[in-house]
Amino acid sequence: MNMNEYMEQALQLARMAAQEGEVPVGAVVVKDGVVIARGRNRRERQKNAVCHAEIEAIYNACKWLGGWRLWQCELYVTLEPCPMCAGAIINARIPRVFYGARDEKAGSCGSVVNLFDLPYNHRPALVGGIMEEECSRILTEFFRELRIKKAALPKWQPPQK
Amino acid sequence: MNMNEYMEQALQLARMAAQEGEVPVGAVVVKDGVVIARGRNRRERQKNAVCHAEIEAIYNACKWLGGWRLWQCELYVTLEPCPMCAGAIINARIPRVFYGARDEKAGSCGSVVNLFDLPYNHRPALVGGIMEEECSRILTEFFRELRIKKAALPKWQPPQK
Repeated sequence: MNMNEYMEQALQLARMAAQEGEVPVGAVVVKDGVVIARGRNRRERQKNAVCHAEIEAIYNACKWLGGWRLWQCELYVTLEPCPMCAGAIINARIPRVFYGARDEKAGSCGSVVNLFDLPYNHRPALVGGIMEEECSRILTEFFRELRIKKAALPKWQPPQK
Repeated sequence: MNMNEYMEQALQLARMAAQEGEVPVGAVVVKDGVVIARGRNRRERQKNAVCHAEIEAIYNACKWLGGWRLWQCELYVTLEPCPMCAGAIINARIPRVFYGARDEKAGSCGSVVNLFDLPYNHRPALVGGIMEEECSRILTEFFRELRIKKAALPKWQPPQK
């Protein structure tokens, strides 16, 4: 499989997240050409700040391989990792990361900062912009629909005398 | 309770980690003066890169409170948070963080970088050096004992003819 096919699998997970009312982000971990772990954003349903797609994928990959060093793995994620997820990638010693859309607000692989360029004990290689258009569009559509839903809610009115 | 008493509870968790052969780091989350969640480093036993003390404490605090925004909470941790844990603190909107010892190699609250000073959508207040001596000593002793244990292992010898 090529990069786009792995990213398409991450996009499938992002679409599942959107259907569950979550900000659509998906991630897969690949080893020797095989997807060994998946993750999607579950923050709202799990009501938990750590339940990002990459954390779930890395957690599952460590479980699957029985060790915390993912040095033979690659991670594909639809959105530029936040500082927590970029830090988890460093901690897991993942050598290569591929992401789709940029995240200007929280992205920590080049937008707010590039954690992979700082002198930690591991510096993953990074490729951004994989299937960028699709990865962006799913986010744009999700937030547009959210605004429409919110606008359709009945507005609170002060009681009339 | 005061700052030192909360840090003492985090230190107790770090001591438990050391007894389990884990790098001794402990963390507690405090709300309205009460410790509502605890975490300790479990990376080796869990064989999982995301099992740091702060991640466990934040995960448990979200579970306990039933929401991902820990905006009324404080986090106490014996060691300066790594980028993953500093990112989780930002994601959880924790307003105040207290740490013990500095971590020159991976610390992301002033050592390698200060993530709380970057333009993310949340900037926690930070107090370092709480019970610094005790928090450092437990780490120094752990690594000293580890070196002694390793030195005591029988060395591999090439077969003698």
